[in-house]
Amino acid sequence: MQIVVQKFGGTSVASPELIRNVARRVVSAKEQGKQVVVAVSAMGHTTDHLIDLARAVGDCCPEREMDMLLATGEQVTIALLAMALQNLGHRAISMTGAQAGILTDEAHTKARILKIDPVRIQKELEKGNIVVVAGFQGMNVDHETTTLGRGGSDTTAVALAAALKAEVCEIYTDVDGVYTADPRLIPDARKLDLISYDEMLELASLGALVLQARSVEVAKQYGVTINVRSSFNDNPGTLVKESSDMEECRLLSGVAHDINVAKIGLFDVPDRPGIATHLFKALADEKINVDMIIQSWMRSGRNDIVFTVTRDDLSKTIPIVERVMKEIGALGMEYNDHVAKISIVGAGMVTNPGVAANMFEALAKENININMISTSEIKISCVIEEDQAVRAVEAIHAKMIGKL
Amino acid sequence: MQIVVQKFGGTSVASPELIRNVARRVVSAKEQGKQVVVAVSAMGHTTDHLIDLARAVGDCCPEREMDMLLATGEQVTIALLAMALQNLGHRAISMTGAQAGILTDEAHTKARILKIDPVRIQKELEKGNIVVVAGFQGMNVDHETTTLGRGGSDTTAVALAAALKAEVCEIYTDVDGVYTADPRLIPDARKLDLISYDEMLELASLGALVLQARSVEVAKQYGVTINVRSSFNDNPGTLVKESSDMEECRLLSGVAHDINVAKIGLFDVPDRPGIATHLFKALADEKINVDMIIQSWMRSGRNDIVFTVTRDDLSKTIPIVERVMKEIGALGMEYNDHVAKISIVGAGMVTNPGVAANMFEALAKENININMISTSEIKISCVIEEDQAVRAVEAIHAKMIGKL
Repeated sequence: MQIVVQKFGGTSVASPELIRNVARRVVSAKEQGKQVVVAVSAMGHTTDHLIDLARAVGDCCPEREMDMLLATGEQVTIALLAMALQNLGHRAISMTGAQAGILTDEAHTKARILKIDPVRIQKELEKGNIVVVAGFQGMNVDHETTTLGRGGSDTTAVALAAALKAEVCEIYTDVDGVYTADPRLIPDARKLDLISYDEMLELASLGALVLQARSVEVAKQYGVTINVRSSFNDNPGTLVKESSDMEECRLLSGVAHDINVAKIGLFDVPDRPGIATHLFKALADEKINVDMIIQSWMRSGRNDIVFTVTRDDLSKTIPIVERVMKEIGALGMEYNDHVAKISIVGAGMVTNPGVAANMFEALAKENININMISTSEIKISCVIEEDQAVRAVEAIHAKMIGKL
Repeated sequence: MQIVVQKFGGTSVASPELIRNVARRVVSAKEQGKQVVVAVSAMGHTTDHLIDLARAVGDCCPEREMDMLLATGEQVTIALLAMALQNLGHRAISMTGAQAGILTDEAHTKARILKIDPVRIQKELEKGNIVVVAGFQGMNVDHETTTLGRGGSDTTAVALAAALKAEVCEIYTDVDGVYTADPRLIPDARKLDLISYDEMLELASLGALVLQARSVEVAKQYGVTINVRSSFNDNPGTLVKESSDMEECRLLSGVAHDINVAKIGLFDVPDRPGIATHLFKALADEKINVDMIIQSWMRSGRNDIVFTVTRDDLSKTIPIVERVMKEIGALGMEYNDHVAKISIVGAGMVTNPGVAANMFEALAKENININMISTSEIKISCVIEEDQAVRAVEAIHAKMIGKL
């Protein structure tokens, strides 16, 4: 029997009424003769509310205890959805991440899934149950509850689809697919029918909040087809799958913007081997994800290293950088968390000259100063001041995508 | 090193500020050189809020999923309290019921603790940690989350104290001890310094909400000394311990009232052996706790059986009684959930004649009709109409206890 994994995010399960709505969607897949596994997020703003509670209790938020706290959000949703499904006359059972066999590493609050042992899920599917799994969470080898970081429910869903060899992983959200830019910002943005893993990966990691980047990595690795759809209508969504399926090679898939960015500069760094390793290993040891890294030669014998992290990680990053600065003999550091990253993504970009120039020109016409530039084969990213982000996306979309 | 178990109920942890207040109390025990284990309830009205969510999702509330849902309430509190303790500079770790080794039977929503394996708690105590355990919950042999029923956190605390051979189990609540009647109802009610397990057991099971009856049973079985205290002041509380410690034998310990009562009558039951077994086994099979049972001979060859259950269980009870009624050939049944149970408790009662007569007289003077009477060596209970409950307690306290 074909297995389908469906994932419903926080806005799709924000109230008991919406949970009943989700239950009807799940049942309709079940009634088409499929085995259905559902991964859900916490209801609405539950996670933010829990974080507020933690902050109200004290300054520090020990990560093991944050995971203990946050994991309750999804646990509430799975129980309620299982009840709603039973109310519709279907067999259903809820499972925490641990019960679903989701084993993660030790990194509390940003754990990575090591493997999924789907035996219990399969047993319940064979009994005729719809299985409702808590997204965003797992357990480590010590049976401690871990969470996967913001948006981790997408990764849960895709990893479940891979482990269960599901036909498709349907990601239900509050938009009906992947757009060429954030449709709330750019009314002209168009929905894509199809996008490759690599393009989606760039868009996801660049701040298009439709899918968590890691979920796309996992999908690519295991060849899981993702269908991004709306939980509020029946419009066809956007398929994320291997690019060989695509007939045409689009020049640009979209413009993404990300304001969860902070930049840190380390100045007058001695020019000798091992310096970058020293810095970025120290950050990696604390599980801080560094995004853009730019090292530029400035004057004889000394370099500047500039990099970006998420704003959430900035307060952890600063003391590490200050320590490393002394250890390696750099002469200064600066940081700024009022910046944004604007990116264009497209598999066709590599074979089309002038794309970068076009982007820079769009920004220049709006008098937007570029702080940092970083490029890959399928994307170009610029860091700019945060308060210019919306104008930048509008200008780039209008010039480069809107008129395609 | 001496171990103390402290339990804080929902009103004591209802907000982040109150949780910080609890943390200071816990730390003060730790700073007196004790090893401290804390059991906590869900914050304030969290459990009621979760039940409302379940009802909003649909009619039926499958019990396994209710446990999955309700267990989140305490999990939030343990994480927040562990954070608050760490913020005060102390080592602390939270544990769910399962992590704390609390093994229960299979009865979802009203499970009983089978045993506690305290190895992990002891390991964390030896590392210098304050251990914060989720009350009200455990796991069964299939690693499913179970809950212990309303007030179950008291039982968690006492069972932990027994398993850890703690010096004392301190139950912190919103009143500063056990009173001769509900002080919110009877301003003249007096606080008891000391009460025996048996008296407390009668008071607890009779609706004095200070302690859950099962927790007192466990305390009696394992000889755990309970100290019932206020979490909002430093007044000495009420000690619950073996009655041999008591210098004087009080005639009456208190008056209790309970409105979570429904009565069911089965009329014209054939007078042959095995009838009562048939009825009460059918109820026990569904884990329905029957409280008072009265069988009275009415007329030749036929009996009436009247009994009480909690109001929560009434809707489950009715269809079972209707089925049994047909099976045994009884001629009618009736039920009423607008009743209350008023009880007087005292170890000295058995040697003092006239106590029952005094109680009935107090009720008669107020024109309160008695529906059912049940007595034991240390208590007398009467079922009356609910709307007369407060007057009944006032009258009995004034006549029998207030003037002692």
